[in-house]
This record gives sequence, structure tokens and C-alpha cells, in this order.
Amino acid sequence: MNFLEKFKEEFAREWDSLKEHSFLRDLAKGTLPKKCFFYYLSQDDYYLEDLLSAIGMLVVKADEKSLRRFAIKLLKETVDGELAMHELLEKHNEFSKSPKGKVALWYGNFLINIAFRKSTFVIIASMLPCFVSYLEIGTHYLNKTSPNMPSLYRAWLESYAGEDYRKLVEELCCWFEKEAQKAPDREKQEAKSVFKQAIELEWLFWEESYNCGKLTLGM
Amino acid sequence: MNFLEKFKEEFAREWDSLKEHSFLRDLAKGTLPKKCFFYYLSQDDYYLEDLLSAIGMLVVKADEKSLRRFAIKLLKETVDGELAMHELLEKHNEFSKSPKGKVALWYGNFLINIAFRKSTFVIIASMLPCFVSYLEIGTHYLNKTSPNMPSLYRAWLESYAGEDYRKLVEELCCWFEKEAQKAPDREKQEAKSVFKQAIELEWLFWEESYNCGKLTLGM
Amino acid sequence: MNFLEKFKEEFAREWDSLKEHSFLRDLAKGTLPKKCFFYYLSQDDYYLEDLLSAIGMLVVKADEKSLRRFAIKLLKETVDGELAMHELLEKHNEFSKSPKGKVALWYGNFLINIAFRKSTFVIIASMLPCFVSYLEIGTHYLNKTSPNMPSLYRAWLESYAGEDYRKLVEELCCWFEKEAQKAPDREKQEAKSVFKQAIELEWLFWEESYNCGKLTLGM
Amino acid sequence: MNFLEKFKEEFAREWDSLKEHSFLRDLAKGTLPKKCFFYYLSQDDYYLEDLLSAIGMLVVKADEKSLRRFAIKLLKETVDGELAMHELLEKHNEFSKSPKGKVALWYGNFLINIAFRKSTFVIIASMLPCFVSYLEIGTHYLNKTSPNMPSLYRAWLESYAGEDYRKLVEELCCWFEKEAQKAPDREKQEAKSVFKQAIELEWLFWEESYNCGKLTLGM
Repeated sequence: MNFLEKFKEEFAREWDSLKEHSFLRDLAKGTLPKKCFFYYLSQDDYYLEDLLSAIGMLVVKADEKSLRRFAIKLLKETVDGELAMHELLEKHNEFSKSPKGKVALWYGNFLINIAFRKSTFVIIASMLPCFVSYLEIGTHYLNKTSPNMPSLYRAWLESYAGEDYRKLVEELCCWFEKEAQKAPDREKQEAKSVFKQAIELEWLFWEESYNCGKLTLGM
Repeated sequence: MNFLEKFKEEFAREWDSLKEHSFLRDLAKGTLPKKCFFYYLSQDDYYLEDLLSAIGMLVVKADEKSLRRFAIKLLKETVDGELAMHELLEKHNEFSKSPKGKVALWYGNFLINIAFRKSTFVIIASMLPCFVSYLEIGTHYLNKTSPNMPSLYRAWLESYAGEDYRKLVEELCCWFEKEAQKAPDREKQEAKSVFKQAIELEWLFWEESYNCGKLTLGM
Repeated sequence: MNFLEKFKEEFAREWDSLKEHSFLRDLAKGTLPKKCFFYYLSQDDYYLEDLLSAIGMLVVKADEKSLRRFAIKLLKETVDGELAMHELLEKHNEFSKSPKGKVALWYGNFLINIAFRKSTFVIIASMLPCFVSYLEIGTHYLNKTSPNMPSLYRAWLESYAGEDYRKLVEELCCWFEKEAQKAPDREKQEAKSVFKQAIELEWLFWEESYNCGKLTLGM
Repeated sequence: MNFLEKFKEEFAREWDSLKEHSFLRDLAKGTLPKKCFFYYLSQDDYYLEDLLSAIGMLVVKADEKSLRRFAIKLLKETVDGELAMHELLEKHNEFSKSPKGKVALWYGNFLINIAFRKSTFVIIASMLPCFVSYLEIGTHYLNKTSPNMPSLYRAWLESYAGEDYRKLVEELCCWFEKEAQKAPDREKQEAKSVFKQAIELEWLFWEESYNCGKLTLGM
């Protein structure tokens, strides 16, 4: 059992509740309100900028040329994927941009903190829950979509169920395992804690979007 | 009206709700449960490490020798204040350390993100709500304490109402105004947004402690 | 007169002595020993890794999405250019890699220091002498090559005289001017000092390579 | 044999040539021209700012509270030592500040690069040659001074031969050995390479000062 499998098993409950979030179930049923989906897409754009910054730190910190090259490829393909989604959105003129919400702020701060202070192994651990869960979500829900599902939702699922995305995530996972081999125990502990925090932030991301930006935090 | 006053006025509602949080009112009345206070002290220790890291970045980034010297002084006095509190705590053997809670994680990530990516002016803006609100809280509540208040609570308030702490905060505020003079408009916008986020995180810090670690976030 | 022109004029003597270095004159005449050229290519590979790291920090620090996208493009095209050169080299089996020399160390440390501590404007200033001088060198010497020039030297010059490279450098220069518009005076002073240091390091880079790694520093 | 001893043995030739540099011999004989000494003190001031920045990164990156506390102490004592030297200098009104020379630039860039990209163990390795060689230089030459030696030179040697400085350096060395225990092999290789580079930069620092700023680099 490799490292990713061990981490997913250790946090199986959290991992499942992430993939089974009502946002995703309703999206597949076709009943998710458009305004929630557009809120999500807005937040995803903010998230993306911080993710690109964090990958930028992988370029900076990579000890091996090949990891630096992979990080550059990851930057390029992440931007390309974003462009494809935006071209799709231009056909949906009801889309309007929401301001950056709390979860996107927290998630971004989390990624950047790890990126600046931790090793490349731990940095990859902080990104993995996003990349891997999207791959599983795309594959899982594409087979379960309702015929009434809006074409936009389908296109979104397809982009994460496709061959290109799968290969990219697999390559990222390979780097994670490779770095795990060299990591001292202290870093493995850090990676586990960071992996768990990222799952929670993913969950909160869906939760805030499901409530169109209203997280009940009391302030 | 200087910059700090402008910011406080702009966010007057948030600033007041921060200073009037039930945690602080109950502390002054002497009715705050010890376990909530000890939870708070635990979290404060975690916060402190991230604050020290953020001040460390001020040392790294300072363009002027005098700002670098002040940042070093701020590090030294922050550590000394912490030691004094811990000596006090050693007499309270019921104290036990809680694990790092969500708000301390979010707040730390926020400070580190700003510290790495932003200018010294914006970094100071991210720290100001903590330093300044504690000064105001110490001064405000020390005059309103109940006779039944535990001596530990009083000692805590006194440490932030004292002359040494007031001078340190005033010096930090001077640096904030000085840096504000040189900052381009874009940085002033950033500083304002960062100042507001820090107030919210301060509020959440009291809120989580008031609930002994249970923030109702739904996950 | 734009900012780049002003800087080049201010350091006209250094800029000219950079472009007229004996390494380049001898290369164009075809008399540069192969071992000096191979030493240079080795050092360029080391330099490239640090340059990629510094561009990675542009990705991290960019305040605007469009600058972040450009930095990602710059990473991608820099890596592609390197690959093309390495494919060419594979036909020259006499090539062997030298250890990292002093100038590559100094230059890399310089780039990384600026990248971590300074603004995006100053970071671009630190990279400009390399990108711009190579464009001018490629264009200038390609018209002056001797018929005896080895085909490898010609291919090297061509890669910097080509349309793709010219467009990339022009885009970088546009960003430099755009950022200069917003920069406060202090940053303009920093940019000038950093620009001059980069010219000196470029000169030392040719000098060390011309002496096949032997810089007379006395130790 | 601990790690520091192993490193010093491995680079015994460089270490000796550092401690035997003509700058130091002439200083002990009392024949070093004042202008060379004042040039050195100017450069040392520039170096100090970059050293403080690098120690600031130790504060940022420390995984253990106790290392963070030590880094803060190191900042404080380094600043105090500098102040003492400057008070001494105020009595010598012939002192005038030189601009930052090449070696101080290179050394500063080196320290900052390591501080941002490497582990706390490797960061300490980059600072050790300076701290340790000054302790050995102070102790060694104080016993060999000529009766004609200017009182300023003696005071300078005494500051590095004193008990306070010795204890500080010993504590730094303890941290180095402690971190070495946990470091993976790759980091030990990095530490060795960084240690050697720092010795060379120390040597160049004396060399440039001995020539009152004129390093023969040919440009």
C-alpha cells in the first residue's frame, strides 16, 4: 500500500464525506441551483491563483531538475484547464463574479504557508486532496448524471474525468511517493497533518458554495 | 486622523464587537470557566509561534536598519512576555495544553502568507489588530473587574495594561504610520483588507475559546 | 525614452563591454576553443535552474493574474529553449559537464536573494540584462560570423536571434515598463542598482568561461 | 569527532589560510593601515544586515520552539555586539563609511539564498564559518599582539575572545550538532558544500579589505 492509499485509509471517513457532499450529489442530479455553481466557480478562480503561487514555490524549492520541470508542466496545464473552463463560461452570460469568500481565503493562506515553510514533499501533500478528489469526483459522478443535468455541469465533470487530467494527477502522485521515500519521519508526520487539513478545507469549500457564500460562523 | 484611526473608524462595528466579546466580559466578571481560559492560553501559545515567524519576516524584509532593529526588539519582548505568563501558569497546576484549534491554524496561515508575500507596511497591518486590541482590552477591563475575579485573570489583564506593553505597541503604531507615508495606493488597499481580516480572526479566536474549542462549522 | 533605455544609457560603458567581450568576438570569428564553449554551456545549465527558481517567485508574488500568466509562459519557453539546445548538443559527444563555477554560484545567489526580498518590478530588473543582452548578442554577431564558424556556435547565436526569442524578450520588457509606472522612487533606485549588478555578473560569466573556469581571484 | 570538527578537518587547508590571512597578521602586528580596517568595518556593517536577515529566517523556519528562541537570542546579541563596536568607533572620528563592496554583496546573496531555500541545519552551516573563525581569530591573535597595536584593534580582538561571545558560539555549535543528528544524507552533503563556500567568502572578505576594496577581478 503506497503513501497516498495509507493517508486516504486513515482519513476514510473525511474522504468519503468530501466526495459525498450535497453540492456534488445535487450537481449530478441536476438540482444544484446555478447561482451556487457560479459562486463555486468564482471561488475556484481565487483558489487557482493561490494554487499557482504554491506550485511556483515547488519550482523554487525543487532539488531535482526533473521535479522542477514537472512543476512547470503542472503550472502550464493548470492554466490551460482554467482557460478551457472560461471559454465554456463565456457562453453562459448569467455568470457573475462573487467576492473572495472565507474558505478561499483560508485555503489560500494554508497553501502559501506550507509552500514557504515546508519541504517539497509536504507541499505536494497539501495539494494532493484537491487534485485527487477532483479526479475521483469527475469519474464517479459522470456515470451517475441525471438526463436533466445542465450541459455546463456535465462539461465541468468531464474536464476532471478526462484522460489528460488523469495522467497529470498520476504523475503528481508518483512524485508524492518518490519524495516520501526520502522524507524523514518528522516530514511524514507533517505531510499527514497537512493532508488532513486540506481535506477539511476541500469540504468547507463545497459547503460554503452549497450555501452560496453563507458559512454559519456566527460573526 | 492617522491611518490606524481611519482603519478603526472604518471597521468600528467589528472593532467594538471584538472588544465586547462575551469571553472578555465574562473574564472581567470572573464568571469565565477556567477551562475556557486555559483553552485560550493554549491557543495563544500556538498563535505566538506563528506571530514570531511573521515578525522574523519583518527582520528579513526591513529596508531600513532601524525597522530591522525594532523587529528584533519586538521578537525579544514578545518572548519575554510569554515567559512571564508561563511562570505565572506554573502555579496553576490544573493547566493542560489543548491541541491546535482551527482558528489558530487559520490565523497562523494568514500571518505567514502576508509575511512572505507582502510589504513591511502590510505585514505590520496584519499584526496591528492583535497588538492594539489587547492594549485596549487590558486598559478597558482592568477598571471594570469584579472583586471575585480570579487572580490569574487579573494578572493577564495587567500584563496588557502595563506601561511596557503600551510603549511597545505605540512604537509599532509609529512604524505603521511611517510606512503608510511611503506606501503606494495599492498597498494601502491591501493593508485595509488585511486589517479587517485580522479583526475577524481575533473575534473568531475569542469565539472558539469561549466554546472551549467547539466552533460550529458543521463538518 | 523608456526605463530600459535610460538604464542602458546610464551604464553604456558596462553594457558595451559586456557585448564586446572576447568570448563573443572569438565565438563569432570561430576561434573560441570548444572547451571554453562547453564550459559556458555547463555553467548556463546551472544558471538556468536558478533563473527558473527566480521566475517561480514571480509566479508566487505577481499581484495581477496577467503577470502570473506571463511568468508561467516565461518558465515554459525557457525550458523549451533549453531542451532544444540539449538536443543539439547530443550530436556533439565531446561535451562533458563541468562543476558549478564561482560566477554561476554568485549569479544564482543574487537572483534568488532579489526574488525573495524584492518587488516584482525589481525582480524583472534583475533578469533583464541577461534576456536583453542575449537578444542583442544574437542579432549583432549573427551578421558578423566567419565562414569557419562551427555550426554549433551558429545554432547557438540563431536561437537568440530568432523571432520567438525576440517576442518573448519584448513581452518581458513591456512588463518592466508597466511595473515601472507603478513603482515608488525607492524601488526605482533598487532596480537601477540591481540592473547594474546583473550586467557585472553577465560580464563575469563570459570572463570565467573565456578562461575555462579560471577566474583570477587569488585564493 | 563531531560534525564541525569533521568539516574543519576536511577543509583544513582553507580553514588555516582563512585564519592566517595577511589582514589578520598585520592587524596583530599593528601594521595594518587604519583605512583598511575602516573599510573592513564598513563592509562588516553591510554583512551584518544580511546575517540578521538570514537569522530572521531561522526564526521563521524553526520547527522547535527552543531553536526559535535561540535564533531570537542570536539576533539580540548580534545587535548588541554591533552597538558596542559602534560606540567604540564614535571615539575615532577618522572613520568614514565605504559603499558596499563586491564580497559583501556576494556573501549577503549567499546567506539569503540558503536562508530561503534550505533547511535550518544547512542555514546554520552557512553561518558557522563566520561565527567560529572569529572566535578562533580573537583567541589566537589576542595572545600575539604587538605592544604597538592600536587600542581599537585590541578592542576588536577582545570582543571576539570574550566569554559572552564564546558561549554564544558554543550554543550555536550545539544546535548544529543537534540538527545534524536528524538531517538526511542529502542535507549533510548540502551543509558541507555550503560550509566550504562560506569559508571562501570569509577569505575573500579579508582579501578585499586588505586591498581597501580593490579585488582584482579584471572588469
